[in-house]
Amino acid sequence: MTSNTKSGKDTIEGLQCPIPLQDYPRVLLAHGGGGRLMRQLIEKMFLAAFDNPTLKLMNDAAVLKMDSSSLAMTTDSYVVQPLFFPGGDIGSLAVFGTVNDLAMCGAEPLYLSAGFILEEGLPMETLWRVVQSMRTAAQRTGVQIVAGDTKVIDTGTGDGLYINTTGVGTVKSGINIGPAQVRQGDVVLVNGDIGRHGIAIMAVREGLEFETTLESDCAPLAEVVKELVDSGVELHCLRDLTRGGLAAGLIEIAHSAGVHIHISEKYISVQEDVRGACEILGLDPLYVANEGRFVVILPEKDSDKAKAIIEKHFPAFPARIIGKVEKEAQPVVTLENFLGSRRVLDLPSGEQLPRIC
Amino acid sequence: MTSNTKSGKDTIEGLQCPIPLQDYPRVLLAHGGGGRLMRQLIEKMFLAAFDNPTLKLMNDAAVLKMDSSSLAMTTDSYVVQPLFFPGGDIGSLAVFGTVNDLAMCGAEPLYLSAGFILEEGLPMETLWRVVQSMRTAAQRTGVQIVAGDTKVIDTGTGDGLYINTTGVGTVKSGINIGPAQVRQGDVVLVNGDIGRHGIAIMAVREGLEFETTLESDCAPLAEVVKELVDSGVELHCLRDLTRGGLAAGLIEIAHSAGVHIHISEKYISVQEDVRGACEILGLDPLYVANEGRFVVILPEKDSDKAKAIIEKHFPAFPARIIGKVEKEAQPVVTLENFLGSRRVLDLPSGEQLPRIC
Repeated sequence: MTSNTKSGKDTIEGLQCPIPLQDYPRVLLAHGGGGRLMRQLIEKMFLAAFDNPTLKLMNDAAVLKMDSSSLAMTTDSYVVQPLFFPGGDIGSLAVFGTVNDLAMCGAEPLYLSAGFILEEGLPMETLWRVVQSMRTAAQRTGVQIVAGDTKVIDTGTGDGLYINTTGVGTVKSGINIGPAQVRQGDVVLVNGDIGRHGIAIMAVREGLEFETTLESDCAPLAEVVKELVDSGVELHCLRDLTRGGLAAGLIEIAHSAGVHIHISEKYISVQEDVRGACEILGLDPLYVANEGRFVVILPEKDSDKAKAIIEKHFPAFPARIIGKVEKEAQPVVTLENFLGSRRVLDLPSGEQLPRIC
Repeated sequence: MTSNTKSGKDTIEGLQCPIPLQDYPRVLLAHGGGGRLMRQLIEKMFLAAFDNPTLKLMNDAAVLKMDSSSLAMTTDSYVVQPLFFPGGDIGSLAVFGTVNDLAMCGAEPLYLSAGFILEEGLPMETLWRVVQSMRTAAQRTGVQIVAGDTKVIDTGTGDGLYINTTGVGTVKSGINIGPAQVRQGDVVLVNGDIGRHGIAIMAVREGLEFETTLESDCAPLAEVVKELVDSGVELHCLRDLTRGGLAAGLIEIAHSAGVHIHISEKYISVQEDVRGACEILGLDPLYVANEGRFVVILPEKDSDKAKAIIEKHFPAFPARIIGKVEKEAQPVVTLENFLGSRRVLDLPSGEQLPRIC
């Protein structure tokens, strides 16, 4: 067998596992946690093995050039526990989450597939509730679920129900949104408070009680993105703030774009209940997952227009500029805290909150 | 809220679960087995809830009309146990299986997504072997894996590794392959022996020993389908014979097309080892899953040409005409056995072989 390209077959086959086995002989929860270990797994194993330029971009969705248009494609498996939580359930999450990833590329979401892995013994009524919720979420976001698959696994080899949804949508010509477009001087806009999804889930699991009902922020983002695109606002990068939260989202962008992003804690909204729960649980709200929050990185000149559009769709919290793309080229995210001191935000190595999406 | 269409929102929301809960209060293995219960679940729950004409066709892949071309989309989750078996593994299966579903619509497979659900504690080396196998399979079939997702679930809530792959491909204009095209007088062609995949898996699980090594037939079908399409052979329907085997595949076609398909046992190849294992395990090879076998339903005039093309790609076994689409319109499959007596083939209610794909 001969090697046909530089990155061809022979450079990988027969090689040892690219993850150092002495350090990580087995998969850890942290390998799925949106942090450093997950990035290592993705970069060293998946990107190396499936080697292609589209995957390497590591955007929320792959943008595929077809004959006359571009197609966006994204996939997510949902393993959230419990299946139902304040503000949503695995069904709405599985639709909104995937639709949102398409929207983050500026795509118009059109079609979803749904792959169900059901554990034998799952109450049929539970499945039905989840399916109804998916139906409602699909109607709300205007996508059709056009392909499906059902597998049933024996009791004890699953945890009720896992769902994979894969979405495709079209990207209008001329739209090019992604870390590569981020420029010095761009501002970072967020569409509301952060940390509610992860804490709403953890509160149910840990039996925490709040003064108010703490609800996940689980929501579709395709409509607001469509309006932003249609408004002519110059969108450089969009990212929904799921696993790893605001911090991981921005660190990934800084890393991909090779820019320094600086943000200020005082502009970042965190509900009191979320802050309190984070203290009890030893979590940092910057790293807690959201399911309806995203950042828009765009030129300052367009930020008022973008803010107004975002606030129309998310009226409960003001859209806020939380930071800026700085001059220095070092790819880091720095945070100025309430006391005025700066620190570099690191990707967490591990998994703060397993099974939150 | 008002109902906007006959099959609109209000006809489903607030209704009780469409699966009779007194009979099936919980999900059974049979709900994923490719038989009657799975069909009930799909038709009554998923098709009703996700109500759209594309999904209702229940083809191997959804064909989606885009601006200037058609796109095929299909999804499958793979939960096979053991992960490695003679003739393949979960990785090659996850690529070939999804590529094959695209091919069954006459599509050219282009892109796959890969969603991994990993159980904490999975040996990293195992994951690496699976990923390498996916890479090789993707190269062999000419598809790119362009989107991915990794979730890690806690020990005891999975069984090592589940993979979802979703595929998209393009369908050339003018190609229209599916049950609706099946006509009286058409012949049913199969590309080799049946039942090997399911029995190879069961043999490992049950510790059966054979005279020869019994290998899964796991193989990609896109190339042979491409050649069939390009040759100008008039293809009416293609179906790969996975869960539920030859019998379920043909029954589904007969049901969708509203035709009577008659097949003869004497033309159906079953290896001696497979037949022997089926006797020991109490299985009927007609219902055992394959992963590289498919039926072509086409006019008799083109059958020699199709046979020659198929045998070029699958030289080990002769491609055989095993039956015909009969005059009567009752949607059934009948089998003439070795003794000359006829019987109607029923969908199995249950799951013969759990976790074979």
